Amino acid sequence: MTRAPQQTLRPILRISFPGDDRLGRGKMELLEYIRETGSISAAGRAMDMSYRRAWLLISELNHMFREPVVESQRGGQKGGGAALTPFGEELLRRFRDMESAMRKALASDLEWLEANRNQGDTVNELSAEP
Amino acid sequence: MTRAPQQTLRPILRISFPGDDRLGRGKMELLEYIRETGSISAAGRAMDMSYRRAWLLISELNHMFREPVVESQRGGQKGGGAALTPFGEELLRRFRDMESAMRKALASDLEWLEANRNQGDTVNELSAEP
Repeated sequence: MTRAPQQTLRPILRISFPGDDRLGRGKMELLEYIRETGSISAAGRAMDMSYRRAWLLISELNHMFREPVVESQRGGQKGGGAALTPFGEELLRRFRDMESAMRKALASDLEWLEANRNQGDTVNELSAEP
Repeated sequence: MTRAPQQTLRPILRISFPGDDRLGRGKMELLEYIRETGSISAAGRAMDMSYRRAWLLISELNHMFREPVVESQRGGQKGGGAALTPFGEELLRRFRDMESAMRKALASDLEWLEANRNQGDTVNELSAEP
């Protein structure tokens, strides 16, 4: 799941929740790694993140919803197993579908942006430098 | 254009450009204030931003496209006039249209998230605290 070097425009979806919580691709990627590795610490390592940071993100995510997104499978021990709940699976699937619906809805505008973006051949200077 | 306290979920659009540039609501809001005030420094002040910070954001924006988005109207002087170019007007209009298209495309998923988000009545604890 390493990101390829970015060649073109890419829309990024974040959902802002009341109370400063955010749902975005970082947390979703972490869920994918938890599904893949069965552990919060391994998922964090795969994203170059400390266990503490990964745990805090997942704890935040769990508090954002009525139902838990991830559940620990053996309590108390660092690196104990973790898995997505059925609700977590649905959340992940929906988020990926939302990204894809967004890309479709914005396709023609993204083409317009792409056609007008600077390919490195233009210098537009503002005259009054602070 | 002050943001009301947030009561519900809000999708946030950002466009990632090759080379770490980003197009998002901060720059777009700055454009709206420049249109309203005719000045980069006044627009910055309206957003609690230093003149330098506002100028750098607009300079970045100008470099992201083949055509300038904002033009200075009197050179050299701090607080000299600034205006959106016709291209800048189109960019702003398109970005606001993209946000609206995104909200429409995601409406049913946002309803699902809203129905499932924690209204403050649920505590989902992970068992293994780091």
